[in-house]
Amino acid sequence: MTELWLIGIGTGNPEHVTLEARRALRDAALVMVPRKGPDKSDLADLRHLILAACDSPAPVVEFDMPVRDDSLPYATRVARWHDEIAQIWAAALEKAQPQGPVALLVWGDPGLYDSTLRIAARLSPKPGLRVIPGITALQALTSAHAIPFNTVNGAVTITTGRRLRDHGLPPGADTVVVMLDGECSFRHLDAPDLRIWWGAYLGMKNQILASGPLSEATPRILEMRARARAEHGWIMDTYLLRRGD
Amino acid sequence: MTELWLIGIGTGNPEHVTLEARRALRDAALVMVPRKGPDKSDLADLRHLILAACDSPAPVVEFDMPVRDDSLPYATRVARWHDEIAQIWAAALEKAQPQGPVALLVWGDPGLYDSTLRIAARLSPKPGLRVIPGITALQALTSAHAIPFNTVNGAVTITTGRRLRDHGLPPGADTVVVMLDGECSFRHLDAPDLRIWWGAYLGMKNQILASGPLSEATPRILEMRARARAEHGWIMDTYLLRRGD
Repeated sequence: MTELWLIGIGTGNPEHVTLEARRALRDAALVMVPRKGPDKSDLADLRHLILAACDSPAPVVEFDMPVRDDSLPYATRVARWHDEIAQIWAAALEKAQPQGPVALLVWGDPGLYDSTLRIAARLSPKPGLRVIPGITALQALTSAHAIPFNTVNGAVTITTGRRLRDHGLPPGADTVVVMLDGECSFRHLDAPDLRIWWGAYLGMKNQILASGPLSEATPRILEMRARARAEHGWIMDTYLLRRGD
Repeated sequence: MTELWLIGIGTGNPEHVTLEARRALRDAALVMVPRKGPDKSDLADLRHLILAACDSPAPVVEFDMPVRDDSLPYATRVARWHDEIAQIWAAALEKAQPQGPVALLVWGDPGLYDSTLRIAARLSPKPGLRVIPGITALQALTSAHAIPFNTVNGAVTITTGRRLRDHGLPPGADTVVVMLDGECSFRHLDAPDLRIWWGAYLGMKNQILASGPLSEATPRILEMRARARAEHGWIMDTYLLRRGD
């Protein structure tokens, strides 16, 4: 392998793909794609749809994702999972013997709350890395609601559902964006002056949105989210919180 | 005017344009572009280059950007500037009488440290708004350096050079990304454990990058920045700070 290309492909709208990403998919010698599992199968289908739409002539190698061991402490669990994925990549590459750059499709952007760079760093020998930016859930969220990400000269803190649950709102932030929150941690906040802008399946055909004062919007979002999750079998959502807007 | 489309076009690499943005530029009835001023003229040229590359058949209306009154306090100055731009847009639209959606090209993403949404909100009657996300300087920076935006389960604070200068590092943040810093406010930080990843003209052909421990990298960046600014007549830069990485 000469190089590993980590290609951001946006949040599920095939038209989020940039011209740079499309060109890279066309120029790659091999594309690696996680195998379709029982869950999130519409996401696996979407990857193949994007490859087809980009006219990528590269052969596609599918690999199985390992299962995370939920009995381990968080940091150990994540580190071990990354180790296992790196081993699976190495085995797939050893078998495929690509004669040029290898492309990996990454939802959103390869830098933002994604493991791909950390997994790539575990490969030995270290491949050359090229990172192609992609539209993130942050941008898909603010675009869908047509709201600014930040207030004038304001700071924005991007954090995780886990941190929000464990530490509450970050100090001093007037805008907070929460990623990777599978537990609706916003429902535990006692902050009457907060507004929420929430979205799920951002960029996809089944995108759903809700917004309003946090206390009023919370039960509405919980209900929408539970219903959508039951219907699709999976959900990915993100939200922005801002004080009195 | 039926609708105003705010189209994120990335940070200066014409290949940052998404398929969605390209389609919108083709479907628009009119494109509004700020007139080429004496400064940043390569940026004005780039807009026209992007329009041409997207095969946009829409007529282009150029408008003059007002000058900000630097004698006013910051908030007043920004608000008045937005008012003036909204008036200029309204006059240009009144004259052009577009019979369909009007497109505005926005560097980066229309939500992120950009005024376009705030200016659009001043139009009367209010147009329908469609926001198309684009690659931001944040993503162009982390992609160019091939680094993750966040640590595992870590929070990231995005702030401005003005805030960093006035308030120092945001409390508790392990990663800080600084936008709109014309004064290299990082040089005033006394934080021996910080590393910096800096970039200017991100995504463009003349992109320059530097990184390292803050104290060691600062003089190098100041020198590179001054030289590049003198050469090009303008500079736009962004950087990420992270504790002991």
